[in-house]
Amino acid sequence: MSDDLTALAGRIASGEVSPVGVMEALLTRIRALDPEIEAYECVNPAALVEARRCADELRRGERRGLLHGVPVAVKDNYLTADMPTTAGSRAPGYRFAREDSAAVARLRSAGAIVIGKTRTHEFAWGTETPPTRNPWDPSRIPGGSSGGSGAALAARLAYGALGSDTGGSIRIPASLCGVVGLKPTFGRVSRTGIVPHSWSLDHAGPLALSVRDAALMLNVLAGHDPLDAGSADVPVPDYTASLDGGIEGMRIGVCRNHFFGRNEGEVEALVERAIDDLAALGAQVIDFEVPGLQYGLGAIFAIELASSSAYHDLGLQRGATAAMADDVRTLVEIGRLVSASDYLKAEQLRARLIDDFKAVFERVDVVVTPASPVTAWQRGQASVVTGGVEESPLAASWRLTYPFNLTGLPALSLPCGFDSRGLPVGLQIAGKPFDEATVLRVAHAYEGVHHWNAALPPIAKGIQS
Amino acid sequence: MSDDLTALAGRIASGEVSPVGVMEALLTRIRALDPEIEAYECVNPAALVEARRCADELRRGERRGLLHGVPVAVKDNYLTADMPTTAGSRAPGYRFAREDSAAVARLRSAGAIVIGKTRTHEFAWGTETPPTRNPWDPSRIPGGSSGGSGAALAARLAYGALGSDTGGSIRIPASLCGVVGLKPTFGRVSRTGIVPHSWSLDHAGPLALSVRDAALMLNVLAGHDPLDAGSADVPVPDYTASLDGGIEGMRIGVCRNHFFGRNEGEVEALVERAIDDLAALGAQVIDFEVPGLQYGLGAIFAIELASSSAYHDLGLQRGATAAMADDVRTLVEIGRLVSASDYLKAEQLRARLIDDFKAVFERVDVVVTPASPVTAWQRGQASVVTGGVEESPLAASWRLTYPFNLTGLPALSLPCGFDSRGLPVGLQIAGKPFDEATVLRVAHAYEGVHHWNAALPPIAKGIQS
Repeated sequence: MSDDLTALAGRIASGEVSPVGVMEALLTRIRALDPEIEAYECVNPAALVEARRCADELRRGERRGLLHGVPVAVKDNYLTADMPTTAGSRAPGYRFAREDSAAVARLRSAGAIVIGKTRTHEFAWGTETPPTRNPWDPSRIPGGSSGGSGAALAARLAYGALGSDTGGSIRIPASLCGVVGLKPTFGRVSRTGIVPHSWSLDHAGPLALSVRDAALMLNVLAGHDPLDAGSADVPVPDYTASLDGGIEGMRIGVCRNHFFGRNEGEVEALVERAIDDLAALGAQVIDFEVPGLQYGLGAIFAIELASSSAYHDLGLQRGATAAMADDVRTLVEIGRLVSASDYLKAEQLRARLIDDFKAVFERVDVVVTPASPVTAWQRGQASVVTGGVEESPLAASWRLTYPFNLTGLPALSLPCGFDSRGLPVGLQIAGKPFDEATVLRVAHAYEGVHHWNAALPPIAKGIQS
Repeated sequence: MSDDLTALAGRIASGEVSPVGVMEALLTRIRALDPEIEAYECVNPAALVEARRCADELRRGERRGLLHGVPVAVKDNYLTADMPTTAGSRAPGYRFAREDSAAVARLRSAGAIVIGKTRTHEFAWGTETPPTRNPWDPSRIPGGSSGGSGAALAARLAYGALGSDTGGSIRIPASLCGVVGLKPTFGRVSRTGIVPHSWSLDHAGPLALSVRDAALMLNVLAGHDPLDAGSADVPVPDYTASLDGGIEGMRIGVCRNHFFGRNEGEVEALVERAIDDLAALGAQVIDFEVPGLQYGLGAIFAIELASSSAYHDLGLQRGATAAMADDVRTLVEIGRLVSASDYLKAEQLRARLIDDFKAVFERVDVVVTPASPVTAWQRGQASVVTGGVEESPLAASWRLTYPFNLTGLPALSLPCGFDSRGLPVGLQIAGKPFDEATVLRVAHAYEGVHHWNAALPPIAKGIQS
């Protein structure tokens, strides 16, 4: 399996490969690898039937859309009509409808086959996704909350995947698993039918094997949905059209506070090298600072804790939290203690950060940062060290991603190398509201120089596909 | 003093009267009446100097704008460069800048003279405005929180006034004092430089002697202000242009739940008569219900309490609330107990009510209700009876106004008669977002039949002017 989703879609469309053969090979890989990786919560029992239907349609000259016959994975907090949804939880009293979420419906309309539901950190409230293992080192976590999607792609158990991102949950597993993850602008992709975590911070988006795959998936996913109160009615361009435009003369912003100085040394070195690579491609590098970011952690915690507890209100009343994992239970329960007064102050800081980044983006076209201060940590590891300071993995892992949830700006992570333990490092590229095209263009230009993503983790090599 | 502001502005412009003579007469009235009414917190010591300057300008053929030389009063929670601002409080530690709020600056640019600052319920958190008395019966309260503005107009101690409205604070005193009060659409008039009460509910707007005066003042006040995060960049029409269009064929909506069945009998009878009057003018009356309104009180309390406590956070920390009136202190202090989770649920109900009223306004052009379930109550009265149920005056007085703060829709109160005690009753007319023009047109049509507002309270008769 060396194709990315774009190549596979083309080879299926041309008749070079059959959706059935592709699906059979993938199911074989999943049977061989997933018992060790545990990326999937469940596999679609009708996957082969659907592949045969896609093949039949092709024989009749019918192609449903851009992703006809392509197997994609869906994070298990997206509702699906043909598979149960658990949101990674065994807590009682939560009933999730058996219907397709808006994003899944769009994938299916484009011809994609949902091969299975990938694991999520319980209710998307964490960055570890137990029990899923990181394909680059199965003793380590894959990141989260979309850890199943990240691990499935790294092990080549899907060609593309859906994730959701409230504080970094697409970009963190993308970074830690060495794949591409795109959190689009707030409002760009419908969240209808995704189990809510925090309404004003939740984003839907793709994880992918390449930047062009992320662009192609966004073409399918983007668009207005009146059923999602956060959805924006903004025209959708063809995100693949401008990928090859290059970055000559582009202004690359580097936010020197908050994003630098408190990362693992190898992470910071690889990101600095990536910035040099972008400069070598003709971009202009502009340093800046956003002092208000120092208050960002308090703000996102207040908003996310409060929203999560509001969503879980009935579960809290019924004692359902007792059945949650300890870390998630704690977060859901302490969320009740956030005062509305503090919530409003958090929203005011958010408004200020939005203004601050608006001013930044008058001077730069994209902002480049590390995606995570640390590479994948060990399962069960209670702390990490960044900049000489010991802190919880959660506190460290979302530090560089949550600013773009607070501000709603589009942000993508793609691999920019490996540390000395062979673990992937992610480069984050953020852009102006609804300017995913420029983010993707910069990422694609970088990928043209270093396609780290083409590397396979040892565990995934030599498996028949 | 029988002119309204529109007539006075015309007579000053034509040279028929001098701004100096007008101001002298008004200052004489204030000296005679305000010791009993206590509508003013302070009178502008430079009022006569400014009137003389206006007169000089007119002699040179210069007219600054629509309100040249016209005396207006400003609620004491609007910052003013030339007078102190107290927000009705003696609590220590609050420092209000000596600069003009945006609305005051607009009035002055149009040539208006700020004659003084009118009393507000402390920090705009109440509907009684002690110590101000209601000119129709000085043993009664004028309503609030813009009670000073309402009383000043009823006693003809100003030609127009500014108020602010978070849950009804323009419309309640307008209703109880028998004048016109307009809360424009959220975002229509800048709140920059108004002491905040609840950011997402606060509205600035005029109180006036006639509907056409409210339209003229809105012409001066309306417009985008980037310094107010809630301000909308929506074109401003000439609100006086369509006043005389009549209401033949217009669809008048009457919300039969929430707004009816729990008002004083005489209030309800007078409002029903007003609805009949509108039908007699050619309007079509359409009854409807909005069931979600039953949860509105909890929602506005959660939002308003939380926002107020967020604003007063430093005051709370410093113990400044101990110097507040008991009722206000209680509200500010209990606001700390609202949880962020409940706040979010309140915002969700608000979103639902906005949707519900959007659907209503596809079927009707305006909505007509009583403005207050009760007429002015006695100073110190601890409860009122509505629909056979005893409740606090606060709970009763804002019941019919706060729905249009939650939804942000424009709403106006104008007099529709007097109860058997001679106390004014208010009719509330609400409209579509940014459609103040239609609200004003309906109100003006009603005023053409019954100009209750032309009546003078006994205390104000026979005073030299």
